[in-house]
Amino acid sequence: MITAFAPATVANLNCGFDVLGLAIDKPGDEVSVAFNDLGAVRIVEIEGDGGKLPYEVARNTAGIAVHSLWKHLQMEKGVDIVIRKKMPFGSGLGSSAASAVAAAVAANALFGNPLTKRELLDFAIDGEAVASGARHADNVAPSLLGGIVLLRSYQPQIDLLQLPVPNNLYCTVIYPKVEILTKEARNILPEKIPLKDAIQQTGNLAGCVAALYQNDLALLGRSLVDVLAEPYRAPLIPEFQRVRQAALYGGALAFGISGSGPSMFALSDGAAKSAQIAGLMEKTLNNKQIDCQIFNSKVNVEGAKVITNYELRITNNF
Amino acid sequence: MITAFAPATVANLNCGFDVLGLAIDKPGDEVSVAFNDLGAVRIVEIEGDGGKLPYEVARNTAGIAVHSLWKHLQMEKGVDIVIRKKMPFGSGLGSSAASAVAAAVAANALFGNPLTKRELLDFAIDGEAVASGARHADNVAPSLLGGIVLLRSYQPQIDLLQLPVPNNLYCTVIYPKVEILTKEARNILPEKIPLKDAIQQTGNLAGCVAALYQNDLALLGRSLVDVLAEPYRAPLIPEFQRVRQAALYGGALAFGISGSGPSMFALSDGAAKSAQIAGLMEKTLNNKQIDCQIFNSKVNVEGAKVITNYELRITNNF
Repeated sequence: MITAFAPATVANLNCGFDVLGLAIDKPGDEVSVAFNDLGAVRIVEIEGDGGKLPYEVARNTAGIAVHSLWKHLQMEKGVDIVIRKKMPFGSGLGSSAASAVAAAVAANALFGNPLTKRELLDFAIDGEAVASGARHADNVAPSLLGGIVLLRSYQPQIDLLQLPVPNNLYCTVIYPKVEILTKEARNILPEKIPLKDAIQQTGNLAGCVAALYQNDLALLGRSLVDVLAEPYRAPLIPEFQRVRQAALYGGALAFGISGSGPSMFALSDGAAKSAQIAGLMEKTLNNKQIDCQIFNSKVNVEGAKVITNYELRITNNF
Repeated sequence: MITAFAPATVANLNCGFDVLGLAIDKPGDEVSVAFNDLGAVRIVEIEGDGGKLPYEVARNTAGIAVHSLWKHLQMEKGVDIVIRKKMPFGSGLGSSAASAVAAAVAANALFGNPLTKRELLDFAIDGEAVASGARHADNVAPSLLGGIVLLRSYQPQIDLLQLPVPNNLYCTVIYPKVEILTKEARNILPEKIPLKDAIQQTGNLAGCVAALYQNDLALLGRSLVDVLAEPYRAPLIPEFQRVRQAALYGGALAFGISGSGPSMFALSDGAAKSAQIAGLMEKTLNNKQIDCQIFNSKVNVEGAKVITNYELRITNNF
């Protein structure tokens, strides 16, 4: 039996609406796979989903990712899948992407690693698409590859690039326990936007990319502004402005909506500052009696990986 | 008497609508300045403008740039200005920006270089604004500083960045002799654009910036696509699609509209290829009996500069 871990991700990163995503160290999902003698892919166990996820392979993100890879490689032996959800659904942290990615990485390892990580992307996207309703890669790609990933284009094929990650960049994520569906958060956006907003967004994204290459955290902070989605989505999120104020007061470089929300994220420089920011953000929601979960970690530059039995024990104990 | 040269510029660079500009080696404008005893700024001579430019300081880009700097520095002696236009008006090559920049650089040198080049930006923008009707810097900044300049934002102040320029990057510009006014080319654009176009443009601009940092010319070529302005402006330009085909056939990395047109530009790798592309582009317009001018040079990474008497002789002989 082989187990892989795939990290949660913060898509969009404000100015990178639909084109940027970043992996965080925790939380993340685990998927284990083993050969069976049935000549078919099946899901044998799902933990941590509160009974919400389907066991039917064709309707499950991890199931589809494994099946799609299994079929592509024309494997004869079947595969049993165990899914351990370790992160909330509908949180804006790329939960379905993490399951699909962990599944693809685990299955690839089980099959003897015939494909590179980059080559697994399409199979993970196959899986994630069943949950999100669209073939997007802004969660899948960073969860798979780690770091900060730019999805330049999907046409004629996916053109992606891993951007440099400043050494001490931390990401604090707070998840207020309300559900926002990606589809609804997308429908709230206007189909047309002012040209001047598009220009502002392009300038900021270009500044963000340059800042990453130049390791210029001040420029990164100035550039991480979202004029396209945030004005529409922020009102859906409890206490968005208050949490923002708290994060910035704590010294955050930038603050925004993770994916389509309701999770919010803050970037900062170093462990100490991120811990301080985490405390302030959490206190803000606690003061308003809003149930929340907080995740504080370095940006994950490794991406999904097969974990050893030792790592598995560690992960499951904490 | 001190003379400065400021190069022509290609603004927008397709995916960098309103936020990117690039300086080319030629053409460019020259402005000479000398002290007078009148205690005032005046324009004493304008060459090469076909009588089109005003001698009135307050209505002339070079005049305003000098006057604005002169006033800021509270100079007592007056300044005489000579302007040598060496590039076409309304061509999309930043003609008015080049005059304003050359004027600011020449005057600063005359005053003993109290300001850095970067500090001259606002004064050059003052000058250019009288011609373009707006405080834009996407021609002024690259003409002043050289290379490829990103204008991330104008608020609360101008936030610009010089991006790395690939070593052997050439720019071929063809100017079909029809006039397109910046204001008209701007009015033709819609006020609102589809969100999906904005996303495509942001992805491409991010790819372009990454390509410059990584010296990845293939990625640069793939990224230099304009979905915002080109669909509206290209129809105003004679034989745009045919010239594009010629440039790409000749091996251009990218092709597009220079500024708001009618000039078109092609980027390529090396002198030989750019010469071939220049020939093909020119032949395309010649075949259609369209009068045109072609400029072929390396990307100018130096920007505006004071030129010596020797350089002046060279420039004026060729």
